[in-house]
Amino acid sequence: MREITLEHLPWLAEGAAVLGAGGGGSTYLSRLVLHRLLQQGARVRIADAEELGEEDLGPVLGGMGAPTVGIERLPTAGRFGLLIKTLAEATGSSAAFIAIGEIGGGNALTPLIGAAESGLPVVDADPMGRAFPELQMNTYMIDGLLPDPLLLEDAKQVTAVLRHLPDAQTAERYARALTWAMGGSAGLILSTVTGAQVRRHGIPGTLSLAEKLGRAMIGARGAHRSTVEGIAEVVAGARHLFEGKIVDLERRTFAGFARGVITIEGLGSYRGETLKIDFQNEYLIARRGDQPEDVLLTVPDLLVLLEQESGLALGSEALRYGLRLHVLGLPAARELKTDNALAVVGPSAFGYDVPFLPLPGDLLGRSAPKPPSVTAQ
Amino acid sequence: MREITLEHLPWLAEGAAVLGAGGGGSTYLSRLVLHRLLQQGARVRIADAEELGEEDLGPVLGGMGAPTVGIERLPTAGRFGLLIKTLAEATGSSAAFIAIGEIGGGNALTPLIGAAESGLPVVDADPMGRAFPELQMNTYMIDGLLPDPLLLEDAKQVTAVLRHLPDAQTAERYARALTWAMGGSAGLILSTVTGAQVRRHGIPGTLSLAEKLGRAMIGARGAHRSTVEGIAEVVAGARHLFEGKIVDLERRTFAGFARGVITIEGLGSYRGETLKIDFQNEYLIARRGDQPEDVLLTVPDLLVLLEQESGLALGSEALRYGLRLHVLGLPAARELKTDNALAVVGPSAFGYDVPFLPLPGDLLGRSAPKPPSVTAQ
Repeated sequence: MREITLEHLPWLAEGAAVLGAGGGGSTYLSRLVLHRLLQQGARVRIADAEELGEEDLGPVLGGMGAPTVGIERLPTAGRFGLLIKTLAEATGSSAAFIAIGEIGGGNALTPLIGAAESGLPVVDADPMGRAFPELQMNTYMIDGLLPDPLLLEDAKQVTAVLRHLPDAQTAERYARALTWAMGGSAGLILSTVTGAQVRRHGIPGTLSLAEKLGRAMIGARGAHRSTVEGIAEVVAGARHLFEGKIVDLERRTFAGFARGVITIEGLGSYRGETLKIDFQNEYLIARRGDQPEDVLLTVPDLLVLLEQESGLALGSEALRYGLRLHVLGLPAARELKTDNALAVVGPSAFGYDVPFLPLPGDLLGRSAPKPPSVTAQ
Repeated sequence: MREITLEHLPWLAEGAAVLGAGGGGSTYLSRLVLHRLLQQGARVRIADAEELGEEDLGPVLGGMGAPTVGIERLPTAGRFGLLIKTLAEATGSSAAFIAIGEIGGGNALTPLIGAAESGLPVVDADPMGRAFPELQMNTYMIDGLLPDPLLLEDAKQVTAVLRHLPDAQTAERYARALTWAMGGSAGLILSTVTGAQVRRHGIPGTLSLAEKLGRAMIGARGAHRSTVEGIAEVVAGARHLFEGKIVDLERRTFAGFARGVITIEGLGSYRGETLKIDFQNEYLIARRGDQPEDVLLTVPDLLVLLEQESGLALGSEALRYGLRLHVLGLPAARELKTDNALAVVGPSAFGYDVPFLPLPGDLLGRSAPKPPSVTAQ
C-alpha cells in the first residue's frame, strides 16, 4: 500500500492522457479536484492487486459521456462518495476498495477522487490499459462478468441503479441514453468486482504505468528533450508513426460520443504525406491512404497524439485546426489481443474491415504470454 | 374492500379506454394477462381511499412509453411483482397498497396486474382522472410531491431505480430517455405515496368510474343503443362534438411519444365541416378551423373518439384512415382546473396559445368545489 501525494498528480495526469489514446476525458478538472482534496488532508492510498482479499468487493469507477461535454462540467464534490454509498444501499455490501474503470484520461483520476472521498484504497489495475468508448470494451466484460449493478449519477446527484442487465451491450445502450439525458456526462459505477476477479481479469500495474509515463515525460521536458523520448523510455514497443499539422477536423458530438476524422499534413520527413485518423472519443485507426495496406495502426493498439510545442498528449476534445503533432503508436496490453478481446475491441468491433496488425510487444513490457482466458467467476 | 372478478374486466377495460382520451395504451394485452391471472385464482382487491392508513405506503404504478409501441409488447408476467419487490429493496419499506398512476387505457389495468401478482389491494383513486403523456402531469406532482424513487423495468426484467430527482420534469426527461432505450415501453413506478397523500392529492373513485362507464356502454350496446348514450348516462357533462370519417392521419412515433394530427370530415348533421385533432399519445385539442374561436375543446377536458360500428373508444394507436367516429368531450375532474394544474396540463403546457374553456361540470359529477390546494406533505 502506498500513497498518492501532490507530487504524483502531474505525473499521473500527464501519463493518463497518453493512455487515453484520445479518450477518457480531459484530466484537467479531475486533477484540480484531486489537488484540492489532497491539500485539505484527504488521503489516497494505492493497493497492488495482490494485497486484496479474495472476497473483497470494489466498485469499478469512472465517468461516462462524450469528452467534449466532460470538459465543460466540473466533477461535483462528493459525487463518487455518494455513488459508493448508493451502491452499498443497493447491494447491502460494503466496498473494501475502488477499481479503476479505465486508466486513460480523466477517468484514471476519478477513482482517486472516490478514494479521497471514501477513504478506500484504489487498486493498481484496470480492465483496458487505455480508454475505450463503450461499456462492454473492457476485460471484465470480455471475460463474461456482468455489469451488475450499474450506477450513474448526474451533476445534481440524481442516482440511477440498474440491475439484472443481461449483458454489457444492453448496459451500454441504457447507460448511454441516460447519460445523454443527464446532459452528456455522468459519474459511473460500471459494476462491482472482487479481489479475486481483479487478479484474474484485470490488467495489473496500469496506474503505476501512467505515473511512470508522466514522470518520464516531465523529466524529458525538463532536460529539453522531446516527450516522445520519455514515452519510449517507459514503453519499449512505442513507435513514432507520423509528424504533421492538423489541416482538417470533422467533429460532431452525437448520441453520447464525440466522433470525427482528423486530417494531418506531413511535416519534416513526412512532408508530402497525409495521415487520417478516425475517432469515437478515442482514436481508432490511422491511415495514409485508402488502400488496406495504408493502415498504419488500429485499435486496440494505442494512438497517441502529442502536441509538439507542449509535448502533451491530446484528447479528442482538445483537437483544433493547425496544431502540430507527433503521432505515436503503443502496443496494447496483451490481454486485449486474444480472439475474444479482439471481437470486442478490435477494428471489426468499430466497423472497420481490416485486420488487426499489432505492434510488437506488450504495453507493460511483459514477455511471457498470459495463460489462456478462463470463464468468469 | 371489494374484489374484481372476471365479470368486471370488460367493463373496466371499455371504460378505461374512454378515460384514456386516446392514451394510456391499449387495454387489450393487459386485459388478457389479468384474465389469465384471475382464472388461475389470483385475487384483485379494491380499497377506497378512506380505508388506507395515514402512513400506509403504496407505489404509483403504470406503464411508460408510446402506445404505438405498447400494443406490440405483451406485459411480462411478474413484471409488476418484481417492480414492487425492487422498490421494497431500494427503500427498505414494504408497500401496503398499490396506487394507480393513470386511470386511462391499459394503464388503468396494469395496477390490477400488480395487485394480482403481489396480493396488495389497489386504491380506487388516481392523480389524473384520465391519461396524460408526461410524468409531471398528475395531481401528485402538481401538488409538489417528488417522484422518489422512480423505477422502470424493461421487458427482460432489467430494473432501474432513480433517486434524488429534483423535480418531475427531470424525472420525465430521464425516464423517457431510458424507456426509449428499453425499446419504447417500460413498466413504471412513478413514486410512492402514503394513504394520507392519496386522500389529499388524489382524485377519488376513478376506478369505479371506469367500471361504471364500461358497464353503461356495454348495457347500451346490448339494448341496441349507441355507447354515446351509455357514456352520457354516467358523465352528466358529456357533450357530443362531432361525427365524421378520418380522411387524413399524420402520425409518427418519436422521442418516446406517438404524435400526430387527425383530420375528420363531417357526416350527418356535420356534413361539409372538418375537425382536426392533435395528439401526443392523448388527444390534446379539437378545432374546426384555424381561428381562435374554432377551438372546440382542449386538454385537460377529455376528447373521446368512439368508433361508430363497435362503439368502442379508440386510442391514438388504433386510428386508421376511413374510420367513422363520434367525437365526445367530457369535463375534466375539478382537480385539474386549478391555476396550478392548468399550468401543467392546460393547453399552454402543450404549446397551444389558446385559453382553456372548460366544459361545464366535473368528470365525477361532484358539485361542491374542492378546498383550495395545499402544499404537499
